[in-house]
Amino acid sequence: MLTHIVMIHCADESGLIYKITSVLYKYKLNIISNSEFVERNYNQFFMRTEFSGEFDSENLLKELYAVLPVEVQIRLVENRKKDIVILATKEYHCLSDLLIRHKYNDLNANILAVISNYSNLQELTNKFEIPFYCVDHTNLSRENHEEAILQILRKYTPEFLVLAKYMRILTPKLIISYTNRIINIHHSFLPAFIGANPYLKAFERGVKIIGATAHFVNNSLDDGPIISQSVIPVDHTHNSKEMARAGRDVERIVLANSLRLVFDERIFVYNNKTIILG
Amino acid sequence: MLTHIVMIHCADESGLIYKITSVLYKYKLNIISNSEFVERNYNQFFMRTEFSGEFDSENLLKELYAVLPVEVQIRLVENRKKDIVILATKEYHCLSDLLIRHKYNDLNANILAVISNYSNLQELTNKFEIPFYCVDHTNLSRENHEEAILQILRKYTPEFLVLAKYMRILTPKLIISYTNRIINIHHSFLPAFIGANPYLKAFERGVKIIGATAHFVNNSLDDGPIISQSVIPVDHTHNSKEMARAGRDVERIVLANSLRLVFDERIFVYNNKTIILG
Amino acid sequence: MLTHIVMIHCADESGLIYKITSVLYKYKLNIISNSEFVERNYNQFFMRTEFSGEFDSENLLKELYAVLPVEVQIRLVENRKKDIVILATKEYHCLSDLLIRHKYNDLNANILAVISNYSNLQELTNKFEIPFYCVDHTNLSRENHEEAILQILRKYTPEFLVLAKYMRILTPKLIISYTNRIINIHHSFLPAFIGANPYLKAFERGVKIIGATAHFVNNSLDDGPIISQSVIPVDHTHNSKEMARAGRDVERIVLANSLRLVFDERIFVYNNKTIILG
Amino acid sequence: MLTHIVMIHCADESGLIYKITSVLYKYKLNIISNSEFVERNYNQFFMRTEFSGEFDSENLLKELYAVLPVEVQIRLVENRKKDIVILATKEYHCLSDLLIRHKYNDLNANILAVISNYSNLQELTNKFEIPFYCVDHTNLSRENHEEAILQILRKYTPEFLVLAKYMRILTPKLIISYTNRIINIHHSFLPAFIGANPYLKAFERGVKIIGATAHFVNNSLDDGPIISQSVIPVDHTHNSKEMARAGRDVERIVLANSLRLVFDERIFVYNNKTIILG
Repeated sequence: MLTHIVMIHCADESGLIYKITSVLYKYKLNIISNSEFVERNYNQFFMRTEFSGEFDSENLLKELYAVLPVEVQIRLVENRKKDIVILATKEYHCLSDLLIRHKYNDLNANILAVISNYSNLQELTNKFEIPFYCVDHTNLSRENHEEAILQILRKYTPEFLVLAKYMRILTPKLIISYTNRIINIHHSFLPAFIGANPYLKAFERGVKIIGATAHFVNNSLDDGPIISQSVIPVDHTHNSKEMARAGRDVERIVLANSLRLVFDERIFVYNNKTIILG
Repeated sequence: MLTHIVMIHCADESGLIYKITSVLYKYKLNIISNSEFVERNYNQFFMRTEFSGEFDSENLLKELYAVLPVEVQIRLVENRKKDIVILATKEYHCLSDLLIRHKYNDLNANILAVISNYSNLQELTNKFEIPFYCVDHTNLSRENHEEAILQILRKYTPEFLVLAKYMRILTPKLIISYTNRIINIHHSFLPAFIGANPYLKAFERGVKIIGATAHFVNNSLDDGPIISQSVIPVDHTHNSKEMARAGRDVERIVLANSLRLVFDERIFVYNNKTIILG
Repeated sequence: MLTHIVMIHCADESGLIYKITSVLYKYKLNIISNSEFVERNYNQFFMRTEFSGEFDSENLLKELYAVLPVEVQIRLVENRKKDIVILATKEYHCLSDLLIRHKYNDLNANILAVISNYSNLQELTNKFEIPFYCVDHTNLSRENHEEAILQILRKYTPEFLVLAKYMRILTPKLIISYTNRIINIHHSFLPAFIGANPYLKAFERGVKIIGATAHFVNNSLDDGPIISQSVIPVDHTHNSKEMARAGRDVERIVLANSLRLVFDERIFVYNNKTIILG
Repeated sequence: MLTHIVMIHCADESGLIYKITSVLYKYKLNIISNSEFVERNYNQFFMRTEFSGEFDSENLLKELYAVLPVEVQIRLVENRKKDIVILATKEYHCLSDLLIRHKYNDLNANILAVISNYSNLQELTNKFEIPFYCVDHTNLSRENHEEAILQILRKYTPEFLVLAKYMRILTPKLIISYTNRIINIHHSFLPAFIGANPYLKAFERGVKIIGATAHFVNNSLDDGPIISQSVIPVDHTHNSKEMARAGRDVERIVLANSLRLVFDERIFVYNNKTIILG
């Protein structure tokens, strides 16, 4: 059964849930699940409703806009698999995890293509009958390299880009055209160890836990809204290479969990933070 | 600001959220937080709403009953500290944790009294100016011992009983009069290691993780609805005594977290399971 | 550089470490890492030493036996990749994880073959150029089905069998010939929910955490020495199918972590428990 | 039974374990537990041995020095309760935890006194019959305030100082006189959120996990060798105050676990990192 999801964000005021559900009730739509959150510091209201039933989108939206504050944001989408393109560099562990989940229908997304600035993951990708594009960055400016990627993206028009250990910095041009639709897995427990060689830094600091952070890429590489984080214990017997190995398992789990939330349309972004409704 | 919480449970049908919020809207009540859950297997609807505003309880309930299915359960309560009595035996770690939280206003409850079948925790309890009752069980039948406890309870009329490592089995008579209002912390990861000597059993089985479970006591000691569980890793260097020591920290954290959920009125019980609304 | 590992287990007595290291020192062998553990209840001494250097195995063992108690167990092995065969049934998640780790050299084992009583994992296995054998169990007695498996095993002579969600019970005949060399991943937090349908049982009990347990298969399917366990939180929004999905990630991580310990020769088994030396 | 612990640190070379255990064997000392670690990057050897038996300290040390490299560090101590003084400011949760553990013999230390720059924890401390000193910092220079503290410390000559949420920065003078003997609990997952208001920063960054770090104070407040870290999940429903509340439980557990390791003499410090031998 096809269902729909409506995501509503506006300033909080009295009666919002009543007003929204009155429209849905009038249309005889059946609420399957419903979640709200009110952010107290800025008095913001967030609501996610999954529902089933027949309706005309234009009319429904019109009625919702009519009962809600002027400055509301409403997003009405079908609850279905998302179209994605994966960007990777050389590491296999996140890409392989997504390819396996995709094959066994555990990703809620269609992987349209994989793009990498190296070729070593081509063989793996092709095993799963997914198109693979190697866009070598050597001798190319950042802009020209990214333009080559954009040409591929234009062909596939994915709804989301997944950076599965893609180790290059994106330009604002690309980022702006995918606001809150690029998901990155960062190889550390943000905001600790921002930037290059996080496991070497973690080793040198002598940490007892390492982590991973999945986040939207909105501005700089490591500053976007955090979606999910997890950690794994380490100790003095781990050198930086072994910390990286321990990190791989937590990275792919955090990325997969975050993508589930993204593709299930559970996430609002506000003030550079995520609000995730169950 | 005093707020109220209404907990509603009924068979699911179309329009419930709309109908409930329309009543609250009519009364000009301000929803502070709202959560719903629909259990699909049995088609049950659960909703918890915290709200502020002036109203007449009798009228509000009347209107809610009028718009909801006949077989609805509605619970309307003030959002305030609960009155509790703690039962303990000889172990200090859960009781001391609750006494400290109580002293520093981190429990959302008033500890009216502590009852134990031993006297060794009296000194600790008295440090915090809480009445302590030693009800020795030697030479008493289970019924007579419990009757002595019930006499104390009648004096204090607590809303909840907290079993903070109380190692005796309660009779159905006592349990029935506190349905879903007795909280126990069980020294294992239920349903593993039910019964006596769980840490010895865990040691002999060579487990690599031990846990703790807080649950309501409804029938037998270890079978009630689970509220919260957590675990702690152990290894071959832990003997059963050291497992018990590791377990103490996880026990008191699980108990404290569970009591927060109980005293904040977040828990429905259905089919011997808890539904906990955020 | 090839190194060796010696695993020594005997009753504890004074001077054991001195006596063992004196032999290694005499042979000019270089200790790379060394761990000991003394089990107090039964006064048992366990020591694992990894070392490098040239030596004659027969002579070294002779000298070690000469200085140690009569009832000692000594295991001297090269530190190298192990030969394994994987048994599976229909679930993909553990097998795919091992195939990927194997391909990227993160398993410390050679996967010689995959055997299943179903055919659906053949395509996946073949992607990774591993021989796959479907041994259908329909219309076969347990003994005859297992004999067909044993014929394949005889061809490959693996050092370890990995049950990657193999859902059939092994006979004592097979188990005895692989004492402490069959590793199973159990879909629950043993000893809770032993047997069939653990996620349904977990759902019905309303647990707040589900787990996974990797263990050696020595007697019955779920009673062998536990190698590693881990858990993942769940709540009332998880039905049994969603609990199973949550469980898949923890299952494959626990299995992979346990295999690392097994293949690195870190595990002693004593009294149906594991002693794991770092 | 009184036991002793010897901690040995030197450059790694062949035969160290043999040479050390040969001395212990000659003295007929009984090794109760023994752990070694070799740091590969700098070729450093660390060994901790707990043993029982009669011996003359001077002679034993002389013989150990004779067989070991010139630049060795040997620390030979009795395995007994440590004398400590606790410094606190206004927060109760770590201090109360230590007072309770102390009372019930679960700390492996004698709390000689509690010093605070505020008076509000006096009542709590006095309940447990521990001397409390309020050393008000208002109108005092940092040096003069610390001198007042030092006068108290001189009276008690503690072996370790525990900063149980002591919110002032120590001067190098005090730190140098307690190298690797001052333990601090830091209210964040170092190296993230160094400095003031970590929970506000964590809230503003929208993290999904908060942590706590216990470390030695050697130079600046937050840069010393990390002993232990742990985390707790949070989400968008936690404001900074609720993050702080969630943090309190993890802070006191991390501090208590770290103190156990310190007081059991399990920790070497090398290169601003801890090596913790089990």
